[in-house]
Amino acid sequence: MTPFYRSCLLAAALLSTGAAGETAAPPPDPRNVILIIGDGMDEHQVTIARNYLHGAAGELVLDGMPVRGAAQILTVEDAVEGAPVYVSDSANTATSMASGEVTSRGRIGTRPGSDEAIPNIVELAARGGVRTGIVTTASVTDATPAAFYAHINFRLCENPDTMVEVSFGDIPLGDCSAHLKAAGGAGSIAEQLAASSLHVALGGGTKHFEPNAEGTDAPVADLAQRNGFQLVTDRDALSAAPTGAPLLGLFAPSTLPVRLRGEDGREAESPEPSLLNRVHPYLGSVRQPEPMRCEPNPDFAGIPELRAMTETALRHLDAGNERGFFLMVESASVDKQAHERKPCGSIGEMEQLDEALGVALAYAEEHPGTLILVTADHSQAAQLIPEQSLFAAYPIPLFSPGKVARIVTPEGAIMAVNYATTNLMMEEHTGAAVPLYANEPGRGLVPPYLRQPELFDIMRNYLGL
Amino acid sequence: MTPFYRSCLLAAALLSTGAAGETAAPPPDPRNVILIIGDGMDEHQVTIARNYLHGAAGELVLDGMPVRGAAQILTVEDAVEGAPVYVSDSANTATSMASGEVTSRGRIGTRPGSDEAIPNIVELAARGGVRTGIVTTASVTDATPAAFYAHINFRLCENPDTMVEVSFGDIPLGDCSAHLKAAGGAGSIAEQLAASSLHVALGGGTKHFEPNAEGTDAPVADLAQRNGFQLVTDRDALSAAPTGAPLLGLFAPSTLPVRLRGEDGREAESPEPSLLNRVHPYLGSVRQPEPMRCEPNPDFAGIPELRAMTETALRHLDAGNERGFFLMVESASVDKQAHERKPCGSIGEMEQLDEALGVALAYAEEHPGTLILVTADHSQAAQLIPEQSLFAAYPIPLFSPGKVARIVTPEGAIMAVNYATTNLMMEEHTGAAVPLYANEPGRGLVPPYLRQPELFDIMRNYLGL
Repeated sequence: MTPFYRSCLLAAALLSTGAAGETAAPPPDPRNVILIIGDGMDEHQVTIARNYLHGAAGELVLDGMPVRGAAQILTVEDAVEGAPVYVSDSANTATSMASGEVTSRGRIGTRPGSDEAIPNIVELAARGGVRTGIVTTASVTDATPAAFYAHINFRLCENPDTMVEVSFGDIPLGDCSAHLKAAGGAGSIAEQLAASSLHVALGGGTKHFEPNAEGTDAPVADLAQRNGFQLVTDRDALSAAPTGAPLLGLFAPSTLPVRLRGEDGREAESPEPSLLNRVHPYLGSVRQPEPMRCEPNPDFAGIPELRAMTETALRHLDAGNERGFFLMVESASVDKQAHERKPCGSIGEMEQLDEALGVALAYAEEHPGTLILVTADHSQAAQLIPEQSLFAAYPIPLFSPGKVARIVTPEGAIMAVNYATTNLMMEEHTGAAVPLYANEPGRGLVPPYLRQPELFDIMRNYLGL
Repeated sequence: MTPFYRSCLLAAALLSTGAAGETAAPPPDPRNVILIIGDGMDEHQVTIARNYLHGAAGELVLDGMPVRGAAQILTVEDAVEGAPVYVSDSANTATSMASGEVTSRGRIGTRPGSDEAIPNIVELAARGGVRTGIVTTASVTDATPAAFYAHINFRLCENPDTMVEVSFGDIPLGDCSAHLKAAGGAGSIAEQLAASSLHVALGGGTKHFEPNAEGTDAPVADLAQRNGFQLVTDRDALSAAPTGAPLLGLFAPSTLPVRLRGEDGREAESPEPSLLNRVHPYLGSVRQPEPMRCEPNPDFAGIPELRAMTETALRHLDAGNERGFFLMVESASVDKQAHERKPCGSIGEMEQLDEALGVALAYAEEHPGTLILVTADHSQAAQLIPEQSLFAAYPIPLFSPGKVARIVTPEGAIMAVNYATTNLMMEEHTGAAVPLYANEPGRGLVPPYLRQPELFDIMRNYLGL
């Protein structure tokens, strides 16, 4: 164990003594943990959503959470005792939360360099008789949910057809040959889900369950059903599914469509300086992108909302359960829409997260042994920038070198959002520590500052695993 | 009163009921408040400083604070009942904290549109027999400290020579004619400081005390001394100053030099794409800025550190004081260095803030009726971005469209910091809610989420004003 890891675990151990001055009556049984992850939900995303959805002086459900902290993200290079890396991806951060260990970008539940599997909370729960579930607006095989039940060296090995020489176009991105069943491995992420102990798995990703399971002539979906999952693929079937048998719900080929989009599908755009401005930055003028409203995304019609999936998951995890459960709920496209420079999309998915939190809080109200944690996996590119520059008095054209959206808010002002981490078509993640919230049972358990892997210890201890 | 303001104040009133489930024994007298402001200290600045100063798995003094929240920034257009503005400046945010009201950018303790003065905590304290002090690494007349003791329509009216048609080059920026003494006003910010009830004022800004006070042939410094201030201008005199008379310490013409700078004075630089890349973004190559270390800034030699100024201020405020005090401590150049794209500068000033917090915590240890609050006034441009892109497998040149610094950290990795809010030589502020921390006396008083003006109510109530 490296000194780097050791310092994390030491700090986690200290947590068990509780924060000074806090008191927490032991919560009743059964004990449940609901971990809600806003992928890429940093303070900019939270503020942008608050301003748009409730006004600058308004409040999200999130804002009413009684316990608040910050989580420092830890990532390392892909080597045994690798050096720190200051910006993460969703695979290694979900691994931190699901298993309490720091790993390298792209890895799902495996150690850097050595490729060893790291036990995750779903496996510990199965051994302890605690039910588990995942709910996501991404594919159920996407990096964040996958890290809670799977072990593989590369996040894009989501189905049996993407295990060897995974590429995009002609660009080789990775290879999971060592995890093929033929090589003694557990196979692709979808195959690992089909063989998992999960009681509920809801989200997108039908396309990852259509290829034949390795070494068989039946699709992965069949494998899941043979292993006891009932499979539902639309909103009505979701709400009608009987409790009892494990539930697999897949509602789109890949990521679920998002709730909101920019007017006519617009995203952030480049300010356009005039020709004269290209001669000298003090000259000419600039045309800023036109203001736009957010509007409902027509593709979202008929898609189960995150709150509906969360309600169903809670109903299935709760029914006849005297021991408790662990549920991970992810609003995935706060991040995915930010990668694509679509602030309206991120706002709508923040709203979905806030609604799912409302559902979780209502459940916890009736079931007081329910710890709710809300956090992000990493920060993202979007920045709330001035609509009118702080330096507007200077008579020169001022504009961001990135892409800008000027959003008309319901309270009648314009909010400018900037994306400028890269020239690529996909924005980068960023490295700021992320917000962390808990409900009352988290008082005394969730400190004001922690390192992301410590969340695993808090959840495991709370569930008595 | 606008509905916008009313919602703020309503929320503030609710605060007085205390957060559910929290208990707080009444603190002993005398009661003191130390408000530490990191100008522009958002979560990116905190994380960048943590990574550099203590390593990714390390901890700042800040991280040990037992109470943690977030403060939403509120700003309005400069009109009575003005519309919301989503990105602030330091003048209006300091006014929020000092007086509990939302105003427009550039204003110091005055209402938007009407220009009425808003009573501030220094004035309330004087009436209540509570001593007050300000400590800053900026000029003592800069926007943040000024809002705690002054009232004027424009932040740059810092001395008698900058009251009429304030301009930069030939660009008119503002005018404070209505606040001239000849017009029945209180004069420039420096003159208002000289006439104030402050017991301690330490920082930079000698140049604002050199012009003659309006209508006199003596410099503002003389006016301050006639009003009872003892004036010190170097580190030795600072530590030797006897308690008793009010203390004015000015240690540089304007902003104090900062502790750290980039190697050989380097700042963030533009990645340089090759000519071929300018033909098509998939072609050619890019030259990223060379990695750099941070190094001591030679200009900082002999300048009082923020912790030394804080210690002196506490000694003067404490001596023979049975009623209590209010002290504002600002690390100003976290922001100012970020405007100039100098991440090493911001890191050094974050370190200064963390040290000043250490001094405050040590004082509070001995004086249990001391509430310490730490927060920022607004967010800033710097973003911690990946040193190696998440998309590095794609064989095309990837780079930020802004300016980038690649900092070699003491733990042996490279941390990339990006600035890309504007093409101007000065970066913009950003609009994310800011971190908020408190020590033990803040438990039950400081909620996990508040609007920035509510800080005023918390401080006023704690001091019984």
